[in-house]
Amino acid sequence: MAIILGPNQYGKAETRVVHVTRNGSVHEIKDLNVSVALGGDMTDTHITGDNSKVLPTDTQKNTVFAFAKEHGVGEIEEFGLRLAKHFVDSQPTIHSARVQIEEFAWERLSVGGAPAPHSFQRSGVETRTATVTYDGTKAWVVSGLKDLVVLNSTASEFWGYIRDPYTTLRETADRVLATAVTARWRHASEDTDWGKSYAESRQHLVEAFAETHSLSLQQTLYAMGQRVLENRPEVAEVRLTLPNKHHFVVDLSAFDLDNDNEVFFAADRPYGLIEGTVLRDDSPEPGLAWSE
Amino acid sequence: MAIILGPNQYGKAETRVVHVTRNGSVHEIKDLNVSVALGGDMTDTHITGDNSKVLPTDTQKNTVFAFAKEHGVGEIEEFGLRLAKHFVDSQPTIHSARVQIEEFAWERLSVGGAPAPHSFQRSGVETRTATVTYDGTKAWVVSGLKDLVVLNSTASEFWGYIRDPYTTLRETADRVLATAVTARWRHASEDTDWGKSYAESRQHLVEAFAETHSLSLQQTLYAMGQRVLENRPEVAEVRLTLPNKHHFVVDLSAFDLDNDNEVFFAADRPYGLIEGTVLRDDSPEPGLAWSE
Amino acid sequence: MAIILGPNQYGKAETRVVHVTRNGSVHEIKDLNVSVALGGDMTDTHITGDNSKVLPTDTQKNTVFAFAKEHGVGEIEEFGLRLAKHFVDSQPTIHSARVQIEEFAWERLSVGGAPAPHSFQRSGVETRTATVTYDGTKAWVVSGLKDLVVLNSTASEFWGYIRDPYTTLRETADRVLATAVTARWRHASEDTDWGKSYAESRQHLVEAFAETHSLSLQQTLYAMGQRVLENRPEVAEVRLTLPNKHHFVVDLSAFDLDNDNEVFFAADRPYGLIEGTVLRDDSPEPGLAWSE
Amino acid sequence: MAIILGPNQYGKAETRVVHVTRNGSVHEIKDLNVSVALGGDMTDTHITGDNSKVLPTDTQKNTVFAFAKEHGVGEIEEFGLRLAKHFVDSQPTIHSARVQIEEFAWERLSVGGAPAPHSFQRSGVETRTATVTYDGTKAWVVSGLKDLVVLNSTASEFWGYIRDPYTTLRETADRVLATAVTARWRHASEDTDWGKSYAESRQHLVEAFAETHSLSLQQTLYAMGQRVLENRPEVAEVRLTLPNKHHFVVDLSAFDLDNDNEVFFAADRPYGLIEGTVLRDDSPEPGLAWSE
Repeated sequence: MAIILGPNQYGKAETRVVHVTRNGSVHEIKDLNVSVALGGDMTDTHITGDNSKVLPTDTQKNTVFAFAKEHGVGEIEEFGLRLAKHFVDSQPTIHSARVQIEEFAWERLSVGGAPAPHSFQRSGVETRTATVTYDGTKAWVVSGLKDLVVLNSTASEFWGYIRDPYTTLRETADRVLATAVTARWRHASEDTDWGKSYAESRQHLVEAFAETHSLSLQQTLYAMGQRVLENRPEVAEVRLTLPNKHHFVVDLSAFDLDNDNEVFFAADRPYGLIEGTVLRDDSPEPGLAWSE
Repeated sequence: MAIILGPNQYGKAETRVVHVTRNGSVHEIKDLNVSVALGGDMTDTHITGDNSKVLPTDTQKNTVFAFAKEHGVGEIEEFGLRLAKHFVDSQPTIHSARVQIEEFAWERLSVGGAPAPHSFQRSGVETRTATVTYDGTKAWVVSGLKDLVVLNSTASEFWGYIRDPYTTLRETADRVLATAVTARWRHASEDTDWGKSYAESRQHLVEAFAETHSLSLQQTLYAMGQRVLENRPEVAEVRLTLPNKHHFVVDLSAFDLDNDNEVFFAADRPYGLIEGTVLRDDSPEPGLAWSE
Repeated sequence: MAIILGPNQYGKAETRVVHVTRNGSVHEIKDLNVSVALGGDMTDTHITGDNSKVLPTDTQKNTVFAFAKEHGVGEIEEFGLRLAKHFVDSQPTIHSARVQIEEFAWERLSVGGAPAPHSFQRSGVETRTATVTYDGTKAWVVSGLKDLVVLNSTASEFWGYIRDPYTTLRETADRVLATAVTARWRHASEDTDWGKSYAESRQHLVEAFAETHSLSLQQTLYAMGQRVLENRPEVAEVRLTLPNKHHFVVDLSAFDLDNDNEVFFAADRPYGLIEGTVLRDDSPEPGLAWSE
Repeated sequence: MAIILGPNQYGKAETRVVHVTRNGSVHEIKDLNVSVALGGDMTDTHITGDNSKVLPTDTQKNTVFAFAKEHGVGEIEEFGLRLAKHFVDSQPTIHSARVQIEEFAWERLSVGGAPAPHSFQRSGVETRTATVTYDGTKAWVVSGLKDLVVLNSTASEFWGYIRDPYTTLRETADRVLATAVTARWRHASEDTDWGKSYAESRQHLVEAFAETHSLSLQQTLYAMGQRVLENRPEVAEVRLTLPNKHHFVVDLSAFDLDNDNEVFFAADRPYGLIEGTVLRDDSPEPGLAWSE
């Protein structure tokens, strides 16, 4: 028996880079949180502390900043592809790279009804995400979003489920359904109109959420993934994580008040957690797309 | 010498109430976080544990839910006034009440270009706030917002400051100015069009932020408060807390790259913190408006 | 009518300084979060952006680091006093300073039963705090702690309270009482054995919590403050903030199970919030001790 | 081409159960956060909303509470095994269960030097964890901890790494090494003295951290995993996630002060992130142990 090194990776996490494009007096802004993870021939640094095959995480951070200047940022999928390929292609001891990017949205402020040239506010509660993985030969791109909080105030039911000795839940034909969407979708290729693909996929997700008369949050989840796949041929697979943010009808009967789904208590914990995948039966193999 | 009880209060904090208004098939939603703090004749419960003058915090929570049903929610200043007056006016041993409310914004989802009847998404990163204080005779109303993140990518300078032996900062005639606005404004009376007052005060704050060529964040703060007071006669005083969310220009010279205010590192800590008050010289006394 | 500047202050918040004392091979560590707020003759910077009376927040940060080297850190009350006095006494335009410090506790690791010379782990969930305020003539020192989570699994009752139409709570003669203590105590002078005073005050707080058979959380609060004042003559006043972290007995009757205060649901929100002050009737005036 | 359902699971997350054992007047306390995820024959609920094969998440929550009463809690690995087996073995449509448990540590308060019978404080910043996965035939148990913050104030170096055009980091033969340990270790069987195994594995991790003269954080990571495997035959594999919590030496030269590794700035972001696995070359296959 011997003790050995198993899977490993390392990198610089959460480099917060803000890029301002100055087209004369009208500015544009990009606000990213970039995390890099590299893999390669790392036995020596683990066993003996010999770092001759290690590209320091500090250098990775510098590269993020320098690339934002040299190439601009553009769509985060592009920025991730550029960084991931750079690390692997420029260093013989680095065999794979995964770049995860969060993009925080800003919108231009309006002053007196006109767009301000260089003033912005953070918009929305959601964050756009991208994960790019590259192994020296092939790149996988996963786009996504997180913290998109949506709610249907009706058109949600839950009944007909298993009853066991620990079941006390009452069936309902009308409940609030609320969730904070985390969605990630795998692209079939690394050549896509990322901006358009993101905007439309996001809209398909929310429209399917709104339009589905839901008998279970699983049904809503499936409908959301299905809608993206039906409309976006560049998407091969959708993974969704949907916490069921419970809104409990408050019992007001002690105060001689009816409560016909008007007043709810929004609970924090515990919460349901529904996770699922929707894909095409002829999707290309995921390869390293989802590897952590 | 004796040991005595000093100022005290108690209440139920963070009751999360969601109210759905069902006008036929088109729903409206209000999402609040309500905190109640009551003061009164509380010596007994502190010294002997005699609770005969204590209205339980559980009852306060129930009241929040019941009032949402009985009276609806409306503007949060109204809801706060109704609750604060109820607690003091209905209980002889309760002499003051402070109700703090956070309102989380939701916007209607758009499906196929049309507004969805009962589907919503959380909008914006900011939270609207109101604090109502009532002492049995008079009520004070403070409206506000928090977590409104804004940024000017230019038109901000900082120079001409004191230099002491610990000063290393370099003067700048062009920097990014970013902050997360917490603003609270005290109303001169308890009778106002709260919804309109909030919307317009908020817009004045962001317009003043955008339009001020800033020589210091203090100057911007003052301009923001001044703008509200100049335009909203119902507002007597504005208090602002503005963290200076530092965006440092990244030095790329080691890579033979210029960086003319294009690439920034968004730092977390430490941060500057600027706090100030702007008011009219003939404002009515604040009374208990700002008491904690 | 004119618009004027009201109370204001500014400073550098949350400078994270870690100081290592190297006594040969045995090291000591201090880990602080230091926030400075200065007040003074700040009208110009607010109205015109003239910064000639402004000591930059960047300089304040540098001073924190430099003082840690020049004078060491010592007890946080001492470090705060040294900083606060420096800013006011060295700058004619700075008239007051408030220094707030959080100290994160570390304990030495034990290796093979022996203390490690230079290896540590963060200990405890609580944070020690100090706030020093100085106006050029007098200094006020407030010591404290926060996030000290304590729980009594019995010896807590709650009954005999007001019943109104919104009351549904059932009386109890045996409940779990849990809270996250925030305590701050004002010292009568600025000359105290800070380390000993802190350690003993903390112990008095927890012992009073444990030993009080509680009929209300207010009673426990008062007992905690009283215990400190009875035993620590250097303390003039104690302020406590005690959230009632509700632990609800789970109703297991549907499963034919008793639950005699054995299984609880620990709720997040809402929570009771009890705030109170205990002081001597001959305490010196608080002056600026509690000013925010 | 058809759209199909891929991997999926659902369950109740973050049920906060507190269990009090009353041995006469001396109580014991267990404080857990339990998350359940079930997998099975879930196509119907996704496609049509037919819930006849769904055990509601509300029932899962009830089961957690009821089992705490019926069987007590014991070690979290045991509690997880009991729950996971129950869900799969009692429901034909549930084919796998994963139960993740966090345990928050409490220690008995000391009053007058003696242990208090029913009074406790939360201790430590770390959280003990366990993940149990069961597929109807076999169970996999992973124990662990998270948020264990440790620091070596010397005996850490970093040099000899790759230099590329984006490298500016200076080599160092003496730096602070700090991390917040997340460790998970897979057991070879489901029959172990869990309490002893946890306590000793934890101690091996911190001792290896303290005793390793580190040339890279990777080397420290490997040493930590190796130490556990060398001493705990029941452990088959260790996975570690170690953020490099950077402590930067502050440059005080502008103030004519040396800084010989005495004063550091503790940075938040970005941070290095080192992830690795250490295992025996004859470890049993992991099966579903690490599946998410």
